[in-house]
Amino acid sequence: MIEPDIKLAQQLFEQLRAESFDGIGITRDTYGAGEQRAHDLMAQTARALGLEVRTDAALNLYMTLPGSDRNAPAVLTGSHLDSVPRGGNYDGAAGVVAGLSVLGGWVAAGLQPHCDVTVMGVRAEESAWFPVSYIGSKSAFGLLPAEALDIRRMDTGISLSEHLRQHGGNPEGIAAGEAYLSADKIRCFLELHIEQGPVLVEEQLEVGVVTGICGSLRYRHAQVFGSYAHSGATPRSHRSDAVVALAEVISRLQQHWANMEAAGHEMTLTFGQVNTDVQQADISKVSGLVNFSIDMRSRSPQALALMDQHLQAAIAQATQTHGVRFELGERTGSKEAEMDAGLRNIMQLAAKELQLSHRELPSGAGHDSALFSNQGIPTAMLFVRNGNGSHNPDEAMDLQDFAGGARVLARVMAAQAGLV
Amino acid sequence: MIEPDIKLAQQLFEQLRAESFDGIGITRDTYGAGEQRAHDLMAQTARALGLEVRTDAALNLYMTLPGSDRNAPAVLTGSHLDSVPRGGNYDGAAGVVAGLSVLGGWVAAGLQPHCDVTVMGVRAEESAWFPVSYIGSKSAFGLLPAEALDIRRMDTGISLSEHLRQHGGNPEGIAAGEAYLSADKIRCFLELHIEQGPVLVEEQLEVGVVTGICGSLRYRHAQVFGSYAHSGATPRSHRSDAVVALAEVISRLQQHWANMEAAGHEMTLTFGQVNTDVQQADISKVSGLVNFSIDMRSRSPQALALMDQHLQAAIAQATQTHGVRFELGERTGSKEAEMDAGLRNIMQLAAKELQLSHRELPSGAGHDSALFSNQGIPTAMLFVRNGNGSHNPDEAMDLQDFAGGARVLARVMAAQAGLV
Repeated sequence: MIEPDIKLAQQLFEQLRAESFDGIGITRDTYGAGEQRAHDLMAQTARALGLEVRTDAALNLYMTLPGSDRNAPAVLTGSHLDSVPRGGNYDGAAGVVAGLSVLGGWVAAGLQPHCDVTVMGVRAEESAWFPVSYIGSKSAFGLLPAEALDIRRMDTGISLSEHLRQHGGNPEGIAAGEAYLSADKIRCFLELHIEQGPVLVEEQLEVGVVTGICGSLRYRHAQVFGSYAHSGATPRSHRSDAVVALAEVISRLQQHWANMEAAGHEMTLTFGQVNTDVQQADISKVSGLVNFSIDMRSRSPQALALMDQHLQAAIAQATQTHGVRFELGERTGSKEAEMDAGLRNIMQLAAKELQLSHRELPSGAGHDSALFSNQGIPTAMLFVRNGNGSHNPDEAMDLQDFAGGARVLARVMAAQAGLV
Repeated sequence: MIEPDIKLAQQLFEQLRAESFDGIGITRDTYGAGEQRAHDLMAQTARALGLEVRTDAALNLYMTLPGSDRNAPAVLTGSHLDSVPRGGNYDGAAGVVAGLSVLGGWVAAGLQPHCDVTVMGVRAEESAWFPVSYIGSKSAFGLLPAEALDIRRMDTGISLSEHLRQHGGNPEGIAAGEAYLSADKIRCFLELHIEQGPVLVEEQLEVGVVTGICGSLRYRHAQVFGSYAHSGATPRSHRSDAVVALAEVISRLQQHWANMEAAGHEMTLTFGQVNTDVQQADISKVSGLVNFSIDMRSRSPQALALMDQHLQAAIAQATQTHGVRFELGERTGSKEAEMDAGLRNIMQLAAKELQLSHRELPSGAGHDSALFSNQGIPTAMLFVRNGNGSHNPDEAMDLQDFAGGARVLARVMAAQAGLV
C-alpha cells in the first residue's frame, strides 16, 4: 500500500498557518483574500504534482489525477478551505491537504487509478461570512438559489456576486443553474475532517467513522416580550418578566433533552445567544424583552419534531404562568444526511487493519458531505481526533493522528479507484 | 382646614411638561438644562408666593414660609425635580408641586405656622445620570463622599463637579462636607410621590401610606463562565453551558422567592440584564459567557441575607452540575429605612377623615426619604395612585388623586407646624 505524503501535508499546514494567521487565530475569509490564498497554495501544489487543475463558476477547485478510463465515474475527496474569523488551521483544510497527500504518494509511485480521482477545495462552507449553507457545493451542482447571490458578507457588506466577481468567478453561471458536477459522474465523495467535539479526545481514539450528519432546526431570531416595570415597586404577582419566562423554558427543555436521550434519541439543543434589550434593560427594571436563538440538531427528523413540540409546550406554559408573549420568528434548518453503509464498513475495516483506535459517531456539525449525500452520491466522512473543538485558535490535531486518518482515506480511495 | 391650591399645581404640571418634553417623554437631566428649568420654575413660583428662597452647595432648593418661632425645628416636605431620560412628568416633581400647593393655600389665607415650613426641591435623585444614590440629599447633610464629585455623567462624560459648577454650585463646599441641613433642626420630613408599582391602581385605592423603604442588595456586574463549544458537535454530557447554568439559577431562585413570600418575607428579586457576549456568542456555539445583573430589595436585611444565601447555594449547585464558574463581582446596596410610626398614624387618620381609600404598603424603590429617615429624622411618605409605573412617558396620575394626596399632606404638615 502506497503511503500518503505526510511531509507534504506538514509543509502545507505550516504554509497555510503562516499565510492566514491574523494575530490571534486563523482567518481565511470566504471569497476574500484569506480563502483565495489557501486556494492558490493548493492549486500551485497540485500543478507541481502534475495534476489537472480546474475551477467552476463558484471557484471551487478541482485537482485531478486522471484515471485510465476517463469516462468512469470519479472518486472525489476534499473539504472546504475557508475558516471562521479567528478560527483554527485544520477545520476544513485538513480534508484538502489529506487528499493532496494521498495523490502526492500515488504520483511519486507512478500509480494510475482506474477512474479519475479528484481532490476538491470547496468554497464558502463557513456560514459565519454569508448566512447561507453550503454555497460552494450547492453551486457545483447548480443548486444555489439565484437570490443567494445578493446576500452581503457580514463584515464587508458587499454582495456574494460582487465578492465572486472580484476573484474571477461567474455569478451569472451560478444564477443560471450551471452545474459543474453531476451525481451520475461521481462514484463516491469522501471527506476527512477534524472532530469538532470532544468525543475522540475523551475516549482516547484516533479516528471516528461518521454515521450521519445531523439536520438542524433553528430559530435565529426568537423573542420573548414581557412588561418593563420597576424592580423594587413591582411585586412578584404583578410581573411579566421576560428573563424569568425564558429561564423557565430553557430549564424545562434541558429536562426534556435528558429524558429524550434516556429514551434513545440522539440530538443537541443550544441557546447560544440570549440578550436583554441594550436600550431599555436596566438592573432596576423587570425585563420586557429578551432576544435569543435556538439551535436543535439530530440525525433524526422525528427527534427534531419532538423537541420542537416540547418547545411549543414549554412556551405555552411560560406564556400562561408569566403573561409574556413569545415570537419564535422564522424557522430554518438543514436536512440530515446518512453516510453510505458500504463506505462506512470499508472505512472501519481500513482503520482496523491499520491498528487505529476508532469508533462510529454522528456529526452534529454540518458538512459539504451532507449536500453530496443528499444528491444520491455514496458519501463517507472520517473524523480525526482534535482537542479544544473547532472554530477557535486552539484547535489541536496531532500530525500523527492526521497521518493515521490520511492512511485510512488512502485505502478507501484506492479501493474505490480500482487500485487494490 | 385650608385647602391646597390645586389650580397652581395644575399650572405647574403643565408648564413642567411643556418645558421638559423631549419629543418622546420627559427629560429633566440631573445638573443639566432640564433639571435646572424645573428648579427655576419652582423658585420663581415660590418668590411670587412671597416665600424665602435659598440654595445650598449642591443647588438643592429650599422654599420657606417662615414660622412665628424661627428657631423651632422646621417641617420639611419635598422630593426631587430630575427625571430619568424619556421618563414621566410626575416622578419626583409631584412632591415639590404638592408642597408648593399647600403653602400657596396657606399664603392666600394669611396663615403663619409656628415653625418654618420648607418645600425642598432635591437635586440628583435619579441615578440614571450619575451612578450614585441620593447625591442631592446626601450633600444637604454634608454626607456626599468627595470622590463622588469626580464621577462622570453617563451621557455627557463630564464630571459631577463640573456639572455643578456650570449651574453655580459649590463642589468645594460639598467636598469639605459642609452641611446645610442638620437633623436637630428638622421636626419631620414628608414626601409625596407617585406609586411606581401597580398596587394602588389594581386595588382601586387613591393613596398609600408607606411603611418603609426597601434596602437593596445588588450585583451589577455578575458573570458566569462556561466553555464555548460547537453546538452540534458537543454532547450534553460534555458541555459547560453558561446560559443553561444561569437559567437554572434564575428558575431555582424564583422558587425560593415564592417560598419566602409564603413564609411571610416581603421582597423583590430581579435579573434585569442578561447578555451573552456580543463578540463570541453565536447560534451555533454553546455559550461560554453570560453577563447579568441581580437586584434584590426588601425592608428586611434578614430577607436580603437569606435570599443571598439561596443565591450562593444555587450557584454552587449549578457550578457542580455544569462545570461553570460564577463571578458575582462587587456587591453593592443601600440601607433600608423605616417610616416614622407616629407620622404614619397621622397620615392614615388624615386619609380616613378625607374619605380617601388607602392602604399601607412598602416602597420597593429608593427615595430621598430613606436618607432623611436614616439621619434620625421622623419621616413619612405618601404614595398617590399612578398607572403604568414610572420612569416612562406613560405615567398616569389623575389630578383628582393628586389633590387627595395633597390634602392629606396639608393636614399632616399643618399638624406638625402647629396650625391645628
